[in-house]
Amino acid sequence: MSLNVDVLPTYGDVEAAAKRLDGVAVKTPLLRSDVLDQRLGARLFVKAECLQRTGSFKFRGAYNRLSQLSEEEKSRGVLAYSSGNHAQGIAAAAKLVGTSAKILMPKDAPAAKVDGVRFWGGEVIHFDRATEVREEIGQRIAREEGRVIVPPYDDPHIIAGQGTAGREAMLDFADMNVNPDIVVCCAGGGGLIAGVGLAAKTLSPATEIWAAEPAGFDDLKRTIETGKRIPNTRLTGSICDAIITPIHGEMTWALNRTQLSGGAAITDDEALDAMAQAWRHLKLVVEPGGAAALAAVLSGKIDIAGKTVCVLATGGNVDRAVFQKALEQTRS
Amino acid sequence: MSLNVDVLPTYGDVEAAAKRLDGVAVKTPLLRSDVLDQRLGARLFVKAECLQRTGSFKFRGAYNRLSQLSEEEKSRGVLAYSSGNHAQGIAAAAKLVGTSAKILMPKDAPAAKVDGVRFWGGEVIHFDRATEVREEIGQRIAREEGRVIVPPYDDPHIIAGQGTAGREAMLDFADMNVNPDIVVCCAGGGGLIAGVGLAAKTLSPATEIWAAEPAGFDDLKRTIETGKRIPNTRLTGSICDAIITPIHGEMTWALNRTQLSGGAAITDDEALDAMAQAWRHLKLVVEPGGAAALAAVLSGKIDIAGKTVCVLATGGNVDRAVFQKALEQTRS
Repeated sequence: MSLNVDVLPTYGDVEAAAKRLDGVAVKTPLLRSDVLDQRLGARLFVKAECLQRTGSFKFRGAYNRLSQLSEEEKSRGVLAYSSGNHAQGIAAAAKLVGTSAKILMPKDAPAAKVDGVRFWGGEVIHFDRATEVREEIGQRIAREEGRVIVPPYDDPHIIAGQGTAGREAMLDFADMNVNPDIVVCCAGGGGLIAGVGLAAKTLSPATEIWAAEPAGFDDLKRTIETGKRIPNTRLTGSICDAIITPIHGEMTWALNRTQLSGGAAITDDEALDAMAQAWRHLKLVVEPGGAAALAAVLSGKIDIAGKTVCVLATGGNVDRAVFQKALEQTRS
Repeated sequence: MSLNVDVLPTYGDVEAAAKRLDGVAVKTPLLRSDVLDQRLGARLFVKAECLQRTGSFKFRGAYNRLSQLSEEEKSRGVLAYSSGNHAQGIAAAAKLVGTSAKILMPKDAPAAKVDGVRFWGGEVIHFDRATEVREEIGQRIAREEGRVIVPPYDDPHIIAGQGTAGREAMLDFADMNVNPDIVVCCAGGGGLIAGVGLAAKTLSPATEIWAAEPAGFDDLKRTIETGKRIPNTRLTGSICDAIITPIHGEMTWALNRTQLSGGAAITDDEALDAMAQAWRHLKLVVEPGGAAALAAVLSGKIDIAGKTVCVLATGGNVDRAVFQKALEQTRS
């Protein structure tokens, strides 16, 4: 691999990011449910990042990156590509630090996410997820307009920012004198799980980090199992829009290869059921991709019997029709 | 009024309740939404009591009361009457302190609430809200079985327990150097708003306390306006099942008469819209009655322009059909 490991973020970068985010991002709660604990025979804690500003953890990395732009860079603006949660994080952070944002979003991105970007004054440019390469379009616009590209995961500031979610959870666990055996986190490009793993492994080396991905888009699981970065063969066909990426990141894999214990691939139905259980027992609105980690434990794909587990519920930006579909699956 | 004011709870009782609840109840977060703030032209904070154990604030008062039972009382058990949230709070507290609970619930109580009581091992006895007087049935059973009746609001320990929600919110505001101009709280029997008002007025005397009730069941609003405890003429006919009571409590009114600045009556449609807005912008599941305070500010029935406002989202125990109805009302 050609990656220069000097650019990899450290736990010190996560701590610095936490200082930048203090008073700007939400310190999201760790929630639990007596009903789910009884059903699972485990102690389950849910880090509710759907309650984060802009409705997902992505605000953390975006603000950590954009708050470090120079005045000259701010005058030129930023550009990002995202299925929607990174987009909203970038648009909000851009507004808060005083710069402009152009966002490349797939045509099939949920309306709730497009609306969120526009609320913050971000300019949306649509592309076709199946036939166009977003990186090519993005690089052309950035070159023409002098904009700073803010990648969704392969960036040390983004990874460090997302890692603050893991740091917060681990500090809350320490306050409760609880030590999680397992942290489960969804993974697309792998920025969140890399940052969370960095924080969790620093603060509690024995804690295992597990990835949750959509079935058929489980490039990370296959990469863990083979040791080789394997791309996804498709880029559409799952309701977990937030965590479908062509291939796991290079920088994120450099961290995740040593941090991860394993991965689980969950189906659309399992994601919908997890959304319904979160609605019913946690009183949380979680989007399909954001429910992947919860789905991995509720479906039994990660064995947590007798263990203390933290799952991240990473986002709650979901269109009504998809949410209604999940509600129809509620077990009574 | 014949009430002995010596039995009224004080702020010291709220502090004592907070100690009993420490590590047992959830310290619920104060959440906000950039979108709602812009729409309202105000700073809105939502105390998310739907994230409380058993899905509503009622656990606070119930546990505060039951954790003070003698061993002899515990051996006889408790009895409560409730449309469902007090019921679940009592059932959970009974399990946690090691006693048995019988609960009188109206036949039309939401299935989610009945299920919640049964999960905790509570025994449910149904009554007809329109034709039977729950107090009569409850007193007969309590007499026959020697059970301690735990009233839903006219009890100093219940009021003090509910008041911990207000104390927590005010301490969080103090941490943020924010002082709320208005606290809005739904009211049925008035235990929550009495306890919250007690805490808020002690910690910030200038903060106004406003009540939100269902239109047609706004006995407290009319009581505030006339100074006389006026009963509701109906006991069915609102989706806000949690906050329909025959008449405001005697003990709660002794506190609320000096603490409240006013009241607002909200319609079913306004409650449903507030549920949809909470789903969309706060990622919270709120039940109709629990959304009443939010509905009062979103509908403009309480003028909050330019102000800092705390609304309590008091519960999230809602059946699927009602929640789906709310989602159908989402503004895009």
